[in-house]
Amino acid sequence: MVLEETARRIRTMEIRGAGRIARTAAEALRDHGTALQCTNLDEFRQEMHHAATVLTNTRPTAVSLPNAVRFVISRIDASDSLDEAQAALVESANDFIARSHRAVEVIAEFGSRAIPEDSVIMTHCNSEVAVATAIKAWEKGRVREAFATEVRPRNQGYITAQALSDAGIPTNFIVDSAARYFMRDIDVVITGADAVTAGGAVVNKIGTSQIALAAHEARVPFLVTAETYKFAPATLLGERIPIEERSPGEVMSDEIAGRMPNVRVRNPAFDVTPPNYIDMIVTEAGAIPPGMAYVIIREYLGWNRDEWQKDFLIDHQE
Amino acid sequence: MVLEETARRIRTMEIRGAGRIARTAAEALRDHGTALQCTNLDEFRQEMHHAATVLTNTRPTAVSLPNAVRFVISRIDASDSLDEAQAALVESANDFIARSHRAVEVIAEFGSRAIPEDSVIMTHCNSEVAVATAIKAWEKGRVREAFATEVRPRNQGYITAQALSDAGIPTNFIVDSAARYFMRDIDVVITGADAVTAGGAVVNKIGTSQIALAAHEARVPFLVTAETYKFAPATLLGERIPIEERSPGEVMSDEIAGRMPNVRVRNPAFDVTPPNYIDMIVTEAGAIPPGMAYVIIREYLGWNRDEWQKDFLIDHQE
Amino acid sequence: MVLEETARRIRTMEIRGAGRIARTAAEALRDHGTALQCTNLDEFRQEMHHAATVLTNTRPTAVSLPNAVRFVISRIDASDSLDEAQAALVESANDFIARSHRAVEVIAEFGSRAIPEDSVIMTHCNSEVAVATAIKAWEKGRVREAFATEVRPRNQGYITAQALSDAGIPTNFIVDSAARYFMRDIDVVITGADAVTAGGAVVNKIGTSQIALAAHEARVPFLVTAETYKFAPATLLGERIPIEERSPGEVMSDEIAGRMPNVRVRNPAFDVTPPNYIDMIVTEAGAIPPGMAYVIIREYLGWNRDEWQKDFLIDHQE
Amino acid sequence: MVLEETARRIRTMEIRGAGRIARTAAEALRDHGTALQCTNLDEFRQEMHHAATVLTNTRPTAVSLPNAVRFVISRIDASDSLDEAQAALVESANDFIARSHRAVEVIAEFGSRAIPEDSVIMTHCNSEVAVATAIKAWEKGRVREAFATEVRPRNQGYITAQALSDAGIPTNFIVDSAARYFMRDIDVVITGADAVTAGGAVVNKIGTSQIALAAHEARVPFLVTAETYKFAPATLLGERIPIEERSPGEVMSDEIAGRMPNVRVRNPAFDVTPPNYIDMIVTEAGAIPPGMAYVIIREYLGWNRDEWQKDFLIDHQE
Amino acid sequence: MVLEETARRIRTMEIRGAGRIARTAAEALRDHGTALQCTNLDEFRQEMHHAATVLTNTRPTAVSLPNAVRFVISRIDASDSLDEAQAALVESANDFIARSHRAVEVIAEFGSRAIPEDSVIMTHCNSEVAVATAIKAWEKGRVREAFATEVRPRNQGYITAQALSDAGIPTNFIVDSAARYFMRDIDVVITGADAVTAGGAVVNKIGTSQIALAAHEARVPFLVTAETYKFAPATLLGERIPIEERSPGEVMSDEIAGRMPNVRVRNPAFDVTPPNYIDMIVTEAGAIPPGMAYVIIREYLGWNRDEWQKDFLIDHQE
Amino acid sequence: MVLEETARRIRTMEIRGAGRIARTAAEALRDHGTALQCTNLDEFRQEMHHAATVLTNTRPTAVSLPNAVRFVISRIDASDSLDEAQAALVESANDFIARSHRAVEVIAEFGSRAIPEDSVIMTHCNSEVAVATAIKAWEKGRVREAFATEVRPRNQGYITAQALSDAGIPTNFIVDSAARYFMRDIDVVITGADAVTAGGAVVNKIGTSQIALAAHEARVPFLVTAETYKFAPATLLGERIPIEERSPGEVMSDEIAGRMPNVRVRNPAFDVTPPNYIDMIVTEAGAIPPGMAYVIIREYLGWNRDEWQKDFLIDHQE
Repeated sequence: MVLEETARRIRTMEIRGAGRIARTAAEALRDHGTALQCTNLDEFRQEMHHAATVLTNTRPTAVSLPNAVRFVISRIDASDSLDEAQAALVESANDFIARSHRAVEVIAEFGSRAIPEDSVIMTHCNSEVAVATAIKAWEKGRVREAFATEVRPRNQGYITAQALSDAGIPTNFIVDSAARYFMRDIDVVITGADAVTAGGAVVNKIGTSQIALAAHEARVPFLVTAETYKFAPATLLGERIPIEERSPGEVMSDEIAGRMPNVRVRNPAFDVTPPNYIDMIVTEAGAIPPGMAYVIIREYLGWNRDEWQKDFLIDHQE
Repeated sequence: MVLEETARRIRTMEIRGAGRIARTAAEALRDHGTALQCTNLDEFRQEMHHAATVLTNTRPTAVSLPNAVRFVISRIDASDSLDEAQAALVESANDFIARSHRAVEVIAEFGSRAIPEDSVIMTHCNSEVAVATAIKAWEKGRVREAFATEVRPRNQGYITAQALSDAGIPTNFIVDSAARYFMRDIDVVITGADAVTAGGAVVNKIGTSQIALAAHEARVPFLVTAETYKFAPATLLGERIPIEERSPGEVMSDEIAGRMPNVRVRNPAFDVTPPNYIDMIVTEAGAIPPGMAYVIIREYLGWNRDEWQKDFLIDHQE
Repeated sequence: MVLEETARRIRTMEIRGAGRIARTAAEALRDHGTALQCTNLDEFRQEMHHAATVLTNTRPTAVSLPNAVRFVISRIDASDSLDEAQAALVESANDFIARSHRAVEVIAEFGSRAIPEDSVIMTHCNSEVAVATAIKAWEKGRVREAFATEVRPRNQGYITAQALSDAGIPTNFIVDSAARYFMRDIDVVITGADAVTAGGAVVNKIGTSQIALAAHEARVPFLVTAETYKFAPATLLGERIPIEERSPGEVMSDEIAGRMPNVRVRNPAFDVTPPNYIDMIVTEAGAIPPGMAYVIIREYLGWNRDEWQKDFLIDHQE
Repeated sequence: MVLEETARRIRTMEIRGAGRIARTAAEALRDHGTALQCTNLDEFRQEMHHAATVLTNTRPTAVSLPNAVRFVISRIDASDSLDEAQAALVESANDFIARSHRAVEVIAEFGSRAIPEDSVIMTHCNSEVAVATAIKAWEKGRVREAFATEVRPRNQGYITAQALSDAGIPTNFIVDSAARYFMRDIDVVITGADAVTAGGAVVNKIGTSQIALAAHEARVPFLVTAETYKFAPATLLGERIPIEERSPGEVMSDEIAGRMPNVRVRNPAFDVTPPNYIDMIVTEAGAIPPGMAYVIIREYLGWNRDEWQKDFLIDHQE
Repeated sequence: MVLEETARRIRTMEIRGAGRIARTAAEALRDHGTALQCTNLDEFRQEMHHAATVLTNTRPTAVSLPNAVRFVISRIDASDSLDEAQAALVESANDFIARSHRAVEVIAEFGSRAIPEDSVIMTHCNSEVAVATAIKAWEKGRVREAFATEVRPRNQGYITAQALSDAGIPTNFIVDSAARYFMRDIDVVITGADAVTAGGAVVNKIGTSQIALAAHEARVPFLVTAETYKFAPATLLGERIPIEERSPGEVMSDEIAGRMPNVRVRNPAFDVTPPNYIDMIVTEAGAIPPGMAYVIIREYLGWNRDEWQKDFLIDHQE
Repeated sequence: MVLEETARRIRTMEIRGAGRIARTAAEALRDHGTALQCTNLDEFRQEMHHAATVLTNTRPTAVSLPNAVRFVISRIDASDSLDEAQAALVESANDFIARSHRAVEVIAEFGSRAIPEDSVIMTHCNSEVAVATAIKAWEKGRVREAFATEVRPRNQGYITAQALSDAGIPTNFIVDSAARYFMRDIDVVITGADAVTAGGAVVNKIGTSQIALAAHEARVPFLVTAETYKFAPATLLGERIPIEERSPGEVMSDEIAGRMPNVRVRNPAFDVTPPNYIDMIVTEAGAIPPGMAYVIIREYLGWNRDEWQKDFLIDHQE
């Protein structure tokens, strides 16, 4: 029950945010596995792999989701007995959740050091870890002011503005179109990431690449904060990250749309910021240049080319 | 009465759009002058200059407004008798209005020729002349599809989308942040202008420069449509065009803002697109490169340096 | 006969090169008009306008052609008698031809001064005036070496290489793809132009914009040499210059093409170099920045907006 | 005999293409070694090292050649007996050939995933692996159309066009100069590589860097497909890859050249595309950003700094 | 005597600064002409033309010098009698001097309006008119702080720093190399000009182009202040402005240089800033984009192509 | 005594240059440790850690200093007895010094290979390893001429010019502002580095970034030579390298400064060159692209994230 319920809530976006989704999935797997009444290891493995598939399918483009699931499940596969597997499940799920929380703290610490004294910062959308970084930098006295964008169409900028305001940071709230207007007043831009490719491109909320371009034009450093489990191993295989296109109703009400028969509302949720507009990606494994994403994927996500290839390339057995 | 009422409606933006404001001001001057009961030319001139000042002050940054008023008033100044002046007033006001309408037609015609066959076009905000150009190009079979942005915070994109839809143009509606995402699908961007400086920079709705930057990045032509009376003579004197910052309430409701004591809403209405991001400015006097704005100001606005300098430079009499 | 024969030779490219085409058309008009047996001015005008149309239609995209024809014909239109008109025809045709020759000399002189001492120059395609400029600069001891590209598919580079070699200039001959490879050795690039737009963009042999881009990237000055009659007045009206696409047989023989049923040969003859990749356009009226093309069109081509608009905009009578 | 014959055919370019050269060299070494009548390991090693030198010297700039030879020879050096060495030779040669073939398949698979749905692609020169990638993507329904350049002076574009046509891909054939003209219609450019430096620069057929520059200007992704044995270890030591300059006769016939005593034909075979114009290098070890070339060299080519240094730096023994 | 003495002082740079040189030359011509004992107009003209040549030759690259001399002399040429010519000489010389002074005032006024409120400005070298503009802007309360560079090798930055300090402007003094370091703190860069070409390029003190490049990179507006007599008519004829290379002793003492037999000291006095790095050129005739330099030359310097051509092109009489 | 004296000389810059400072610190630690009269390992460790702190604090921003100290000290920490520790100290200090010398030789060898035949090179400031590279390349006949900048305010360019002259290299000496002026004559720029960040940015003498920008603009390769101990591990933790601002007296004498009460002399010693302006960083571990700095830090500096984090992040124990 827990499993299906969690899957539903992720699908409908009751639970949202790459980090929160990942942690909830780990929890759901743990609780599901604990409740299972299996008699042998094989059955347990089969059940858990099925559960993994159910969760992963809820939002196929969220990289943090399969990465979390893989992290939890892989230790079951390495177990030699049912007892061991069940214990490993609980441990690995809890481990993932703890790491995820620690990662935010560590990134906030690392990221805050990369913000110069007396900075005016800009952020876009509502990223748990970018906001944590901004607040940590504020606590260290490094932030003078912040700019938060509105983030149409879901207006997540309100959540960001509220969080920054609650932390006591003097914050300016602007429409997305005003980002370039204020860019010359900004000392550093900080955003989160929904996914990072092997090439160092960052998939994030629609509008991010536009702000990065304006920052690049004006020589303003552009920082991305991202836990390692947001890096996308499949991109090493050439896979492109599909960009989710959301419901038109988020942008224009059906009633108004009905009066414009020739208008189609387009609503891509994310865009791709190329690596040369990004100065640094701050992960819990260190602050890296975007070109180093490849190393993160190999070392921190335990990417195994041969294994991955199995899934994709049936005909080759290198 | 007419005069004050018109001034009020411009101030409160019941009347909006650079062209509409200019034409309404010309009408108001005409009707005001016709109704005046003056006994001599001097009195008439004085009254009309006063009326001009009242109108010009309603929105000091709108370039079309002083340009229209100057056009109408200058013929009164050149008259030798009261009768002549009154006749000149009516004639010049009607002349301005007719020219303004014709300018839109001519620009739409010129601009439509500059759009390649089978184009996908993008526009931002709701410009009378840019929309007319798009529709004219559509009628000639040159437009395949259009993209209209939402234009936060006032959402003028809805008016644009409605107009394009009514004309039968297949139109895509997107949030402002999605402009760069779709830029590679666009063949030409067309916008209007609130003001054009002597240096060829274009002041237009906030967000325009951001879209122009993304077009420039992707080698997409960026066209501006602008009647000559939107060119700003004062910029020849080094004057900067002040950027109006509108009420925070347009962006965030007072109630929500009240919950964020550390947040200040910033709401600049316009931004400045530099000339090197603009490929062509289409005026009723021809399609010019932005660097040629200087010539337009001198030839079509009858700019007289010495006279202008009088107003500004009391101590110099070159 | 002369007229039809000339029209044929231009159409089939026996006569080619913007300057040569223009001069031949002027001659043909002159000889045609001289041979006409008209009894009155109206008849003569009608005949000559017909002749003008025949010539202009041979290659509708060649700007020098209508400009030459307009130059010659306009004086007939201004004549008050048949005798006067016939004399004006001869005089204006001869005048055009003489001006065209002088323009090449003047541009070569102006252009040669813009080439630094001891320069290595690069040219693309075979431009009468660019080659004349190179040779003039060589005679002044300013050129050390030249690079000529092959210019596929018609290989006009051979003519250029021969001309430069005959002048004694040490010349390097390269394939078009090698332009960027050698760019860092180049001090200045000089090309001709088939047309110059009001915005300062230059339409020239396919590949020109690619070389201009590589020059821009490496901070190498890019000079265009162009007689004023290559400037395109219609672009002021928003007209785009149509790019001629030539026969596939120029690129790939029919026999080989027959073996590749899925292959379509594309053969655009020209491309468009944007003004910001061009440092200077040398005309006989002076060496101007590309943005100044508008002034050349208005002053040197006697462009009259009202008259032009008549042809295009039947409904407007500003 | 086999050895000398193979060396001759590589030298004269009967055998060409980086992959084909490498595989043929491996075969030749294998067959040569098998036929040798050696009585002890030392003699065998000496003979094989001599054979390696003969092959490597045929075309000193081809990186795939020494990499293949090193791969095959190194296992002989690690053998403890003549029998073992002979067996190792056959095995390693066959292994290299099999890996080379598999690499093309894997890269085609990876690369095809990186091509967006309904793409128009452009390629330059005739690369085995780039063409395989295009065809694989076509088979997956991701390619709408292709553009192939002529590739002067050797016209390898004909081979590419034939291959694409044979695969059923609607293909456009253009001269090299037309690449920028069509760039705005292209969704992705794919080329091969003759060598990849430790810095991620790609040495490929002359003209590649020019197309990459035009792609960069227009925000079109530029993909390179390259087997790992095309990466150049020596560049880690600062070595520059020498650019072969081929015979003038390839560009201009001797007869014509004879008529131009002042003309020198320049014919560089390759140019260097800088890493910031390259979006991705697809190898059989994954799709990497160009900056990651260093890691490929170290991990996949088994580069050993100390050993390499021995060859170059006699005086240092770090 | 006055003439030779003035010529000497300009040559030795006792008198320096483009404006001061021009005014002194006008004075010297006036006083020389007034003192002349000529008996007829021809003799007077001859003497004055000789004097003009003497002055112009002192520093052949200073554009303000020939422009001033031409201004003064041209009225003599237009005179019909000796008396008229002498009167015209005095009047035109005084007129030039007065205009020169007024131009500085007008430019300072125009330029100060182009500086945003509360600006941090940077200047390079010691320009009379740029400093006047900075001080005028300071008086209007628009300047918060200034940066002055050292200006090696002649250290004119000291004069600038003193002048700004005397005016009460808080000023930062930096070495030339530190310009980019501080660029992100700068709101606008203002310099003078030694010459402006027809293409809008600005010749100014060595290092100016480097600062303009850094400003361009960081989206900082770059303003040039220049009286119209600093525009170079000859550049319309393709002439390049020669860059004066000064004595090595300015950079390195002979004693030290003597110890370095292989070192050559290079000391170019000026460099050329391309127009696309310049946002505005403020002249007394208005604030223009650099591309408009051509118009300034034609309208304000009374450039007459035919007359100019006479001097240069003996064989052409268009 | 040795220790304090060394600390003083580093602090006062009697000893300067990143390499020299590092070697002197290693020597001082060795000699200090050898002279210590400790009775047990703990005491010895404590004394040595104290000594390390004394040295490191002399110039907190010099990355080579803590890296050298860490190298020497770490082996003491790994020792099990006092004797072992003392021997390890001597050995590791001598090892560091020898490696440092060898690194210069190896880099000069690697770097010299990256310089094309017949190059004109430019360098900035006085870098031991950049000068060694230039001289090695000269000895190989690859250098035709060199350009050395003056390097205000400390004029280290004189030392560089002297060294290049002594080696027999024809050298041009220029002021810092003239770098862009001569850039088109340069084939490659070579500098040293004071620090390299994990992101590949290079901290070097003020003015370096300005020259790199001009090189980038003109497509001139920009090479950095840097021993691996100049890479900054702390930047992986987000740390920014603080830029030392030196005494105003270096730039302007107190006497002159006293006459300008509103002038503040700013004197940053270094600036930051972004990685995309750098083509290659030559280290003794190979010639790498700047993006690979991360790998150098991890592999060659033995960076251990967990250990480093201990120092910085008390609350996290991942």
